[in-house]
Amino acid sequence: MAKVWVLDTETTGFDSKTCGVVEVGGVLLDTETLDVVKTYESLVFPDMPIPPQASAVHHLRDSHVEDAPMLELAIEPILTEPHDYIVAHNAKFDKPFLPMLEVPWICTLKLAKLTWAEAPAYSNQVLRYWLNVPDPVAATYPHRALYDAEVTAHIFLKLLATSRSDNPLERMAEVCNAPILLKKVDFGAHKGKAWSELPPKYLRWVVDNGTFDEDRMFTARYWLERK
Amino acid sequence: MAKVWVLDTETTGFDSKTCGVVEVGGVLLDTETLDVVKTYESLVFPDMPIPPQASAVHHLRDSHVEDAPMLELAIEPILTEPHDYIVAHNAKFDKPFLPMLEVPWICTLKLAKLTWAEAPAYSNQVLRYWLNVPDPVAATYPHRALYDAEVTAHIFLKLLATSRSDNPLERMAEVCNAPILLKKVDFGAHKGKAWSELPPKYLRWVVDNGTFDEDRMFTARYWLERK
Repeated sequence: MAKVWVLDTETTGFDSKTCGVVEVGGVLLDTETLDVVKTYESLVFPDMPIPPQASAVHHLRDSHVEDAPMLELAIEPILTEPHDYIVAHNAKFDKPFLPMLEVPWICTLKLAKLTWAEAPAYSNQVLRYWLNVPDPVAATYPHRALYDAEVTAHIFLKLLATSRSDNPLERMAEVCNAPILLKKVDFGAHKGKAWSELPPKYLRWVVDNGTFDEDRMFTARYWLERK
Repeated sequence: MAKVWVLDTETTGFDSKTCGVVEVGGVLLDTETLDVVKTYESLVFPDMPIPPQASAVHHLRDSHVEDAPMLELAIEPILTEPHDYIVAHNAKFDKPFLPMLEVPWICTLKLAKLTWAEAPAYSNQVLRYWLNVPDPVAATYPHRALYDAEVTAHIFLKLLATSRSDNPLERMAEVCNAPILLKKVDFGAHKGKAWSELPPKYLRWVVDNGTFDEDRMFTARYWLERK
């Protein structure tokens, strides 16, 4: 039996080196019974002002977090609850903000891209409506930590149900730990096309550009080598 | 004395030719007293399914709008209330969805770009926190029509307060009816730079690209002619 914390983090910005956490939320799942064991949410004092661009996403302002605990304290109830994996939607965003979590991470964004090539998009909220998962119980709204973690938990359970592995969690973590071969281009002039159809010149431009994430780089290299 | 309807529209997608309205909301302002005369909000039956990408924004689903009035009926209370101008944040999005509104439109997005060069970004919600306007009264959440219209109304009042024209509304509508000279680049490799500093080759690329909006095209042409 394994327990996974499905987590979501709200922050003051994108870069964990210069930004802080303003909220963590999580759903502890028992992956054998598929039950929610518990949920947890805490505001976090980020020790820096929340810029308007971040408030515009989660609608948390300085006044909301001025009396909240620091991250080290706020994360305690997550850390001390025995768990085998962390699950997050776009784990490469959350993981650097939560370096104290030392178990393997599973990324529902990566797995969704691999599993559902026909999805119209892969954000937490688009997958929520596309998969028609149950509404969150949290009495907040999207882009708050527990609300989003609940959506991710439902997406994770759908992904788990599609796995044919004997050790699905181990396999998921393994897949998420390496770049994946993307199917459809999700940016720029070729948006919506299959990566396999892109002209070598464009694939070369992606490889040389230096600003694309590891999955796009890996996919561009993969097809470039086969042209 | 002038009355303006500050409106917001939620839809099934971006293109008014192929998409429908799912909600309209508005705040009727008296621009002399600066009072809210009334507010209005109605769900709208779009006569087509709401795709997951649209639900992911406003969180309205088919079941929410199945019994709602058609747009022609839902818009009646707005149409029949005497008004001199329509105000919207990014009016070029809302206007084609509401062709029955025949008074001049004022776009708070265009005016914000002209007025506040130092703003970190220009979305309705970023300006809300950056300008520190009062919270909406509507008991919903961002990206619902009345909630967003309330934010836009506050942004509009801030813009109105900065006007030095004798006929500020007429002047605002006039400015919004033409392309504007943008200050900072808000996309791509040169994001954040002044348009005036861009190399001619890049300005030429913007002009020839064909996918940029009229303000970016106008600004690129303007600086290209001066290089």
